[in-house]
Amino acid sequence: MSNVKALPLLDPAAQGVAPCCPPVTERPMNAEEAEHAAKMFKALGDPVRLRLFSAVASHENGEACVCDISDVGVSQPTVSHHLKKLKDAGLLTSERRGTWVYYRVEPSVLAAMGRLLATSAAS
Amino acid sequence: MSNVKALPLLDPAAQGVAPCCPPVTERPMNAEEAEHAAKMFKALGDPVRLRLFSAVASHENGEACVCDISDVGVSQPTVSHHLKKLKDAGLLTSERRGTWVYYRVEPSVLAAMGRLLATSAAS
Repeated sequence: MSNVKALPLLDPAAQGVAPCCPPVTERPMNAEEAEHAAKMFKALGDPVRLRLFSAVASHENGEACVCDISDVGVSQPTVSHHLKKLKDAGLLTSERRGTWVYYRVEPSVLAAMGRLLATSAAS
Repeated sequence: MSNVKALPLLDPAAQGVAPCCPPVTERPMNAEEAEHAAKMFKALGDPVRLRLFSAVASHENGEACVCDISDVGVSQPTVSHHLKKLKDAGLLTSERRGTWVYYRVEPSVLAAMGRLLATSAAS
């Protein structure tokens, strides 16, 4: 039914129409929206994965390879596994450059999730 | 080491210092912060629970009892079970009034989670 695509929105003014869902304080989510958003929240619902996500998000130029973020106390294969899960959930994009795969936070997705949790004027 | 307490902050101007964690784009989270925040994301990482959370958050006066939000296709005991999980994660507070327990979104927690995912000036 839905043909909404998660396009990277570079114009901050356009972030309001980013991928998913109105603020939780605005109206109850429908099943489709909840399915979509829960997938992203679930991906962030693991402490190691969340640390890796923040490591990528806060890294120089908003991108990092496994080689940059191996200081969270797990092995490099485990780091790669978690980054893949974040990518599968739509939170990261990746690009291979030479030996390494570089991960980058999808800003429109981050903005949409932030907006979803924003306390609107309603409360 | 840390003696930071998660106090409910009612002053909107103080929401910036609410319970947990800097924006993910600001710096990598440490283990303690990630443990705390992942617990909340995990609670929202289930579609039914997320729908119930948004049902409470968007209900009149920002609060609802089980009797108000039973239209997500699961039984009332299941609704109660999910609301308890959201409460355990610190996302909802509850108060018994007569027959019903009323749930309410903790605004400072919601604000802190939204802030955590906000795309700061850094990106």
